[in-house]
Amino acid sequence: MPRMSAEELEQFLYSHFPDSAHRAFRVERVDEMFAQVRMHFDKRHLRPGGTISGPSLMTLSDTAMYMALLGMIGPVGLAVTTNLNINFLRKPAQVDVIAECKLLKLGKRLAVGEVTMYSEGDADPVAHATLTYSIPPGPL
Amino acid sequence: MPRMSAEELEQFLYSHFPDSAHRAFRVERVDEMFAQVRMHFDKRHLRPGGTISGPSLMTLSDTAMYMALLGMIGPVGLAVTTNLNINFLRKPAQVDVIAECKLLKLGKRLAVGEVTMYSEGDADPVAHATLTYSIPPGPL
Amino acid sequence: MPRMSAEELEQFLYSHFPDSAHRAFRVERVDEMFAQVRMHFDKRHLRPGGTISGPSLMTLSDTAMYMALLGMIGPVGLAVTTNLNINFLRKPAQVDVIAECKLLKLGKRLAVGEVTMYSEGDADPVAHATLTYSIPPGPL
Amino acid sequence: MPRMSAEELEQFLYSHFPDSAHRAFRVERVDEMFAQVRMHFDKRHLRPGGTISGPSLMTLSDTAMYMALLGMIGPVGLAVTTNLNINFLRKPAQVDVIAECKLLKLGKRLAVGEVTMYSEGDADPVAHATLTYSIPPGPL
Repeated sequence: MPRMSAEELEQFLYSHFPDSAHRAFRVERVDEMFAQVRMHFDKRHLRPGGTISGPSLMTLSDTAMYMALLGMIGPVGLAVTTNLNINFLRKPAQVDVIAECKLLKLGKRLAVGEVTMYSEGDADPVAHATLTYSIPPGPL
Repeated sequence: MPRMSAEELEQFLYSHFPDSAHRAFRVERVDEMFAQVRMHFDKRHLRPGGTISGPSLMTLSDTAMYMALLGMIGPVGLAVTTNLNINFLRKPAQVDVIAECKLLKLGKRLAVGEVTMYSEGDADPVAHATLTYSIPPGPL
Repeated sequence: MPRMSAEELEQFLYSHFPDSAHRAFRVERVDEMFAQVRMHFDKRHLRPGGTISGPSLMTLSDTAMYMALLGMIGPVGLAVTTNLNINFLRKPAQVDVIAECKLLKLGKRLAVGEVTMYSEGDADPVAHATLTYSIPPGPL
Repeated sequence: MPRMSAEELEQFLYSHFPDSAHRAFRVERVDEMFAQVRMHFDKRHLRPGGTISGPSLMTLSDTAMYMALLGMIGPVGLAVTTNLNINFLRKPAQVDVIAECKLLKLGKRLAVGEVTMYSEGDADPVAHATLTYSIPPGPL
């Protein structure tokens, strides 16, 4: 069972990352080893040709992983990304992107997750990422 | 619908990769954008400490991706791996490992898939890989 | 010999990516299969704990690769990132970050490069990325 | 200064990995945060089309990283690969492959390295890998 609700996670996110980019994110669902995060469509995330930019999708995947992890271990600020591998699969449409993160491993020192990202209303993924977080030693 | 059955794929695999390593593989299932491959447990794949070796799991993930891809495009010998990213998640047990490959993208030039590997009888994955194959230009 | 100078590449970058994030970038050097890009320190790129954010470093690595590639093939707007793998190595200092991109392969369809990123004045890298770009078929 | 010589590392390798695949490897050089390993050309490593197989190159990159790491921390048997990302760049010639591993980070818990692989006598790399090893807590 997750230790934090979607609302608590979104509050944590906004209080720790007060920049505008993260304002586009909504934590829609958390579950056992799982989180779903929506990135609202925003013209500022476009790159030439009208595509949602790669860095926006990378930030989204990182945020979805962070939410899935904190959902399980609680509001630990010091977990950090150590590796991110992302494949860009299709040109995203100019709509919201939904990221689904599944934790593959939650160890004492490392957590690994995979994130599949979809344009709203399309079953074919636009990007897929795997991420590793290092979890600080502590009172867990 | 796949263009090749599990039996045809396994025959293709053995006729093209006649070395002993691949003899441990069974193509168990192919489906739309999907393949499942079993690696029979073999003491030769052990590394110190009695763990199935990383290279064995890498070879298994590459084979599962190759089978899923050929299932869709037919027996094209010239498709080659261009990128493989693998996370080792848990020490595998000394049993068969089952790899499930899901194709995330099947384009004209590139195919991308993800492979989750499980020790038989355990729901927690032992490794997860994402792979990219380059598909030669041709009469597809 | 590169087809574009550092000045031409920076102009191309700014005209195609007019958002503020890229304003922090300076194309410092281009050479055969090589580009060096500086990211000026900017408090907006900080994440909690005073570290330069992961997405900033990802954007920097992607930009350095794009500059190294366009330096070789000219101002082709349609080259796109297909894979990015980044390892975060150390907490960056609150100073400029310098990215050095070396192209490992420049094929007709795919280009692969590696990018090492340093905090100014420190020889130990803060992050390392490898990237693949897909190059559109065309009059090259 | 490395804690182990090339000879000591090769002995360690052979005593811990007695299978035939590793018999093709020679530890040619170790230095501060660096190792160079040669894979002797062996027809058994060929895949269809006469190319040295991807798994052989993956095993080589993993071995070069392991040697560079043990060179620095000594003969610790329990260090394990947690992530490997490899890009296959060119079809290798039917000659020896030489792998050069540079450690990018040597932390208490994680080590990260990059490995560039060349066909003997050719300056263009055939493959490039980045790897992460998890280092067990201990008396280091």
